[in-house]
Amino acid sequence: MIDLPAEAVELIESGVNAHLVTINADGSPQLSMIWPGVDDGEIVVGHLRFHQKLRNVERDPRVVLSMEGPGSNAGGLRDYLVVHGTARIVEGGAPALLGELAPRFLGPDVDFPPAGAPDGWVLRIRPDRIAGSGPWTG
Amino acid sequence: MIDLPAEAVELIESGVNAHLVTINADGSPQLSMIWPGVDDGEIVVGHLRFHQKLRNVERDPRVVLSMEGPGSNAGGLRDYLVVHGTARIVEGGAPALLGELAPRFLGPDVDFPPAGAPDGWVLRIRPDRIAGSGPWTG
Repeated sequence: MIDLPAEAVELIESGVNAHLVTINADGSPQLSMIWPGVDDGEIVVGHLRFHQKLRNVERDPRVVLSMEGPGSNAGGLRDYLVVHGTARIVEGGAPALLGELAPRFLGPDVDFPPAGAPDGWVLRIRPDRIAGSGPWTG
Repeated sequence: MIDLPAEAVELIESGVNAHLVTINADGSPQLSMIWPGVDDGEIVVGHLRFHQKLRNVERDPRVVLSMEGPGSNAGGLRDYLVVHGTARIVEGGAPALLGELAPRFLGPDVDFPPAGAPDGWVLRIRPDRIAGSGPWTG
């Protein structure tokens, strides 16, 4: 596990969408866009349903996330952050996490998830290595 | 191979960054952000150097690309396009392709790549399936 640089945490907590890659049973990549949060040095993702990506993580915990930054480098290329990590699934806690993240994505007055949402699962991703281009890569 | 929906082609050609996933030798995912173009129904990417992602494609041609759209759905979730495809490498042609794409990303008066750039390689990705959420998924 590595400590995420402060600039990476700032980006993740700014309300940026993350492209999350897991590995299917046949070895092909699976990708979906998610809301990332940070908790205790790990990247956390809330799930109300047991999606394909969670089934994939049960089999192979290696994941990658990428996020676009607001800036660009001297050549004009857009900043982006890639986090390689090891994921594990924790039962419950999804509504609280999604409720905390939702205002960043849907606006301050949003009521999400709806009352009565299932406890779901939280995917916790331990950062192992970062890549990409931007303030987080120095 | 599938035909990309017109809405997907429009997004790709709008000058949007794409997150390109390939598979490393150990089965883990590799991800980098690239400039996508469309040519003859395939997604094309220019490379001046023989990057890790090209070595990966030589071994396993299965790739995934994802791009964020400008809109969102009724619930406020950001549109995104995922393209699952089969990639092949064509020698040469990178400077012409990068020169065609560069103004979309760097501005109309940019001079990129520099004169004397190597011929490089073009990654040609045959779309097999699309996913995500937005006008392209109906």
